[in-house]
Amino acid sequence: MSSTTHNRHVLADFSVVPMGVEPNITKYIVECQKVLIDSGLNFNMHANGTNIEGRYDQVVSTIGKCIDKMHEMGIPRCDTNIRLNTRTDKSITIEDSIRVVNDIIDADSKCE
Amino acid sequence: MSSTTHNRHVLADFSVVPMGVEPNITKYIVECQKVLIDSGLNFNMHANGTNIEGRYDQVVSTIGKCIDKMHEMGIPRCDTNIRLNTRTDKSITIEDSIRVVNDIIDADSKCE
Amino acid sequence: MSSTTHNRHVLADFSVVPMGVEPNITKYIVECQKVLIDSGLNFNMHANGTNIEGRYDQVVSTIGKCIDKMHEMGIPRCDTNIRLNTRTDKSITIEDSIRVVNDIIDADSKCE
Amino acid sequence: MSSTTHNRHVLADFSVVPMGVEPNITKYIVECQKVLIDSGLNFNMHANGTNIEGRYDQVVSTIGKCIDKMHEMGIPRCDTNIRLNTRTDKSITIEDSIRVVNDIIDADSKCE
Repeated sequence: MSSTTHNRHVLADFSVVPMGVEPNITKYIVECQKVLIDSGLNFNMHANGTNIEGRYDQVVSTIGKCIDKMHEMGIPRCDTNIRLNTRTDKSITIEDSIRVVNDIIDADSKCE
Repeated sequence: MSSTTHNRHVLADFSVVPMGVEPNITKYIVECQKVLIDSGLNFNMHANGTNIEGRYDQVVSTIGKCIDKMHEMGIPRCDTNIRLNTRTDKSITIEDSIRVVNDIIDADSKCE
Repeated sequence: MSSTTHNRHVLADFSVVPMGVEPNITKYIVECQKVLIDSGLNFNMHANGTNIEGRYDQVVSTIGKCIDKMHEMGIPRCDTNIRLNTRTDKSITIEDSIRVVNDIIDADSKCE
Repeated sequence: MSSTTHNRHVLADFSVVPMGVEPNITKYIVECQKVLIDSGLNFNMHANGTNIEGRYDQVVSTIGKCIDKMHEMGIPRCDTNIRLNTRTDKSITIEDSIRVVNDIIDADSKCE
């Protein structure tokens, strides 16, 4: 992997969808969360996926480990959806992004 | 639209990516948030998109209004990414989904 | 749905992922294809999804009917991923987009 | 990266969306195509993204190089969407997947 990509900060969001198993997937989410904690990266689970940030190589490696864990647990097929945001004009973190959203919500409630 | 789709509850997550304008998009997110509030649907903005739930027709109409607002603000091109989760075995809400995630996090912290 | 969204041309790509059933999903793709043919919209199936174009309301209605068909066939849970491209500076069709890609490939092969 | 992920075959589809530049992005697609050719991986551009297949580490490295190229060309911000399909029950290639789709289309046209 080129050193540029290797070092690039990415703000990502991903969702791993297990196929070929029962529709209730809580036990798989539990194991994904352990992989995420072990990665040492910042992450934030929401109702339809997980925000994660770090260097590109760290983020894609961690997502790969989540997929591995799913298959190790017996899931025959997975469909993983990833959104990756990269920028060179400034670095943006999960915290920055959530602060922007909260400022918007606060400004809105003050206007009412 | 068939009555089945019309009435089906969906738990969605979407992200509207403005193209052809400056890379700082906070002012566009502010306007999207107003459209979301006006929709009356439950929604939850996170670092890389927005959870939204409701009937299929309500959710896609609201996302369409967000896209309209972007173009009305002068954005020449938008790329919108949507994840839609539908199920017939049970209905799942943003609140249910976040409770599952929080239960996982709580269980994990008690084990430490 | 606002008249703006209603009439807006979109170039979309979507993938319906059945959950809670066997991992081989060919029979479900067959039924989706019938829904797509019945819609009368231009579409193009590829290795990991389907390009579809039309007015926003037609495209989201057709995707909704594909999801309906999946649930009618007994699939308890579906995860649908949609990319929607909209633009006001010009209208772009699947054919235009593929022509651009083919021109790129042709130009490249002439340079070799 | 764990050896499991490293060696796992993935059938992916991705779309890189340039932000902060003009809405016509043909020249960026041309450069992405060169990166894809240099990768030696099988790929197939369609109207709204690119199918690509290979080992997980090869695929994510190649997508990372496409993102790098975008930023080297002066794009300040990119939003990249990736769908990754992995399975342990059988290996599926772009060619297999397109053959399934073509068989469906052929069967359908014989029935008319």
